[in-house]
This record gives sequence, C-alpha cells and structure tokens, in this order.
Amino acid sequence: MTSDNSTTFRRMHRDGAAFLLANAWDYASAAALVATGFPAIGTTSLGVAAAVGLPDAAGQALDATRALARILSRLPVPVTVDMEGGFSDEPEEVAGFAAELAAMGIAGINIEDGRPDGSLRDVPEQCAILRAIKAKVPDLFLNARTDAYWLGIDDRPPQPEAVRRVQAYAGAGADGVFVPSAPDDASIAGLVAAVPLPLNILFAPGRHTVEHLTALGVRRISMGSLLFRTALAAAVQTAVAVRDGEPLPIDNVPSYAEVQAWC
Amino acid sequence: MTSDNSTTFRRMHRDGAAFLLANAWDYASAAALVATGFPAIGTTSLGVAAAVGLPDAAGQALDATRALARILSRLPVPVTVDMEGGFSDEPEEVAGFAAELAAMGIAGINIEDGRPDGSLRDVPEQCAILRAIKAKVPDLFLNARTDAYWLGIDDRPPQPEAVRRVQAYAGAGADGVFVPSAPDDASIAGLVAAVPLPLNILFAPGRHTVEHLTALGVRRISMGSLLFRTALAAAVQTAVAVRDGEPLPIDNVPSYAEVQAWC
Repeated sequence: MTSDNSTTFRRMHRDGAAFLLANAWDYASAAALVATGFPAIGTTSLGVAAAVGLPDAAGQALDATRALARILSRLPVPVTVDMEGGFSDEPEEVAGFAAELAAMGIAGINIEDGRPDGSLRDVPEQCAILRAIKAKVPDLFLNARTDAYWLGIDDRPPQPEAVRRVQAYAGAGADGVFVPSAPDDASIAGLVAAVPLPLNILFAPGRHTVEHLTALGVRRISMGSLLFRTALAAAVQTAVAVRDGEPLPIDNVPSYAEVQAWC
Repeated sequence: MTSDNSTTFRRMHRDGAAFLLANAWDYASAAALVATGFPAIGTTSLGVAAAVGLPDAAGQALDATRALARILSRLPVPVTVDMEGGFSDEPEEVAGFAAELAAMGIAGINIEDGRPDGSLRDVPEQCAILRAIKAKVPDLFLNARTDAYWLGIDDRPPQPEAVRRVQAYAGAGADGVFVPSAPDDASIAGLVAAVPLPLNILFAPGRHTVEHLTALGVRRISMGSLLFRTALAAAVQTAVAVRDGEPLPIDNVPSYAEVQAWC
C-alpha cells in the first residue's frame, strides 16, 4: 500500500476542499477515526509522548513514535507522523528515521523547527535536515512546520519570520508547510501567497471552519492535540459523573465488541 | 512507595464507601484521573490492548501491559493492573509476571478465569495460578475475577457458577473477588453473602450508583473500559463536529500546558 497511500495523500493536498487531518495518539483512536470515515490519519506528538509519560517537543519520544508508526501503518488510509523536531540535529540521522517510517508504509511526516530548548533552529540547519530527508525518501510527503508564532525570536515580528521560513523550507524541498497559530485571515492569506506549496493550518475551535479556511487558500487543516485533549476531558468528566451520580457527558459510546472489531 | 501504596490500596477495600476504581489505558489518562482526585488507578485491558492494535482477552498484550505498568508505577497513588487471564496457563509464569509488577511498585493485580478461546479455566487450574501468585508476592492485592456471567459453561446457570468460583478463589488466597455483569441486586447481594472478601462490581451506566452498590455491600466499583470507550467517542465526535462546522461536544478541555505538566 506504500506508494498508493503516498499518492493518495499527495492528491489530498491538491484537490477539492482543504482536507481535515484527524490526529490520533494510539491505534484505537486512529482506528476509530478511520471507521468514522476520516480519509487520513496524523499523529499528535503531545498525545504520543504523554501516552508514555514523556513531555512533548522534548525530543524524547522517538521510540514511542516509531512503535506507533509501525502499528498505524496497518491502517487502510494514508498516515502522516509528527516527528517533533526530528529527534536529532543531524540531518542524516533525521533522514534515516524518516526512511524507516517510509519503509513501514507511512505516507508523510511533519517536522518542526522548534527545538527542545524552546528556540527555533536556524534556517540553514533546518533546511539541511529537510534536504537530507528529501534526498533519501523523495516520495514521503514532507510537511515543514515553523513554530515562528509559538516560539519567536527575540522581538522579531512573527509573520515575516514565518514567511521567510516557509519560503526557505519550500526551497529546501518541502512538499507542504505548516504554520500553527497564524492569528488571523490576513496572516493566513499572506502565507498562502508567499509559497506555492499547500499550506497547513492548526484548527482553532471557535475561530476556524473548514469552509472559511478553504476559502483563504488553506489546503490542510490539522486538529493537532485537540482530539487527544478532548478524549482526556471526556474520560475525566465521565469518571466524575459516575462518582457523583450525575448523567454521563457523552452518548453513543462504542461497545466493547465494536472496539474489539477494530483490532 | 511500594508498601505504602499497597497498604493504602488494601485499606480502600475495607473502609468507608465502596471505592471507585478509575481505569486508565495510558499514562496521560491515568495522570488526568489522578490530577482530578481519583485515589487509585486501574488499567483497562481492552484499552491497553487496543492502544497497540491488539484484541483484548487474547493473551497477546503482555508486553504492552508490562510497559504501561512500569510507567504508571511513577504515579503517587496505588495502581492495579489488569493481567487478563495471566498471559499464560502456567502458575509459575503468571506468578513471575505478578512479581515483576510488584517489584515496580504496582499495588494490585486483576486476573480473570476467562481464557483466550472464550472458555472458563477449570477451577483447580485457576486456583493453582492464584496460589502461586499469593505464595510469591503476598503483599500484592490479588483481585480474582470470574467471567461466569460473560462466558458461561454450557447451560449452567451463571449465579451458582459465579458463587462456586469466588468461594474457590477466596480459598486459594484471593484478596478480593470480581464478578462483572452480575445482573441485579439479588445476585450482587448473594455474592456479598457468599464470600468474606471485598466484592468488586463493574459499573453499569444507567443501572448502578456508587451509593446503591455500597448499600448492597460492594466494596470496589470498576469502570472497566467505559472511560476508554468514552474517550474514543469524544475524539470521534469532536472530529466530526469540526468537519461539519458544528459545536464541539465537550467543554473544559485541558490545555496543552496542562497536559505537559502531567508528564
């Protein structure tokens, strides 16, 4: 399925409305989303790390990411794996890990320029990593994320920094670019205009709709850690409701047999 | 913390109202439940298996169970681990695994008499496993579950079979007994009367309350896979709401920073 999934995934970034990437944190959540009809699965690095008790974006969840990727590669839809910052600053090491994922049948990866110390990787270093990945596994959809809005550099305004970075990453061979927390329509439209690649935006509850983001030119909408954090909230609120004798907060819970059927 | 947690956990089965065991499937769900004030964590074998794409109760999730137990042993509350049927029919092997868990600081285990082929293990064989565990790790709270109601034996009525089994398991050294799906007040009260050990019941939404089960003499109430299945439902329903431009189904979702703080 490798190359089929890879082709399908690439096409999703091009045709029709912006596609909604359903981010899972384990096999069950991914299988549930696939069973509901979501056409592609991403991972949430927060969820993958937290599931094993590790902090996100700290470069510590390589084993957990690899193990999950292997399991998710069984799914019948394209899967893209969040590699945090690549789990290394060495381009060849990061490319080697990307090649492992591609060999499993993973269709794409997401790699960010934020580093575990909270700084942004220098642009030439990030570009060297992207080029190494692209040289090694050209078919893997390479989504290059900049954390310019989240981390920032000193007092530089984030939008020009984000534009500069996505343009550099496009030049280094990225297949798509991702700018979480671009704050408004003008910044999103500016990013669409700045690069000829599919733009990925992080869905912001209450502020975004698929329709409006599509109209702005966005091609891919990630839900990031939203589903994972919502799942935790639902579990906790259910436990509290049971404890307090209140009605449960969520209906239409899948049965034991339904979950078993996914595995 | 080992022996403290073990003592605390044992006392919960004895003092006050029946205690509600919050069943988690990964570190994040456990940490979220602890942060909300739940005084003990169990695991859900369905969730632990499904998280890595394996079926429950099939005896295949030993590695996943061991890995999760190691991570959960960091928690500041007692943790009890669902061992399915023990992942082996050999008493010494099962006891060895239980000893591994105890060495990690796990306070209790749950072991069922249902087997991967859907039959119930013969009573003498199940008792040999329980005795081996008790001999090897006497401080580990040993919760013996019978699946008499779920699996049954030919046309035998389940209640007498359940009573016969929990009495035998009590005689083999169990510290508590667990009868999922005892269908009504009379069957629950009959089980309480049948053994001098704390009775564990599986919470049934819409039918049970902590207060009523306490009044019947139940000492421990498990939520089984309910929280896990609810979490999946919430994730799926959130993804669908985002896709369709509808309001999200769950409020008070923890922030990224809150989840990070648990890890």
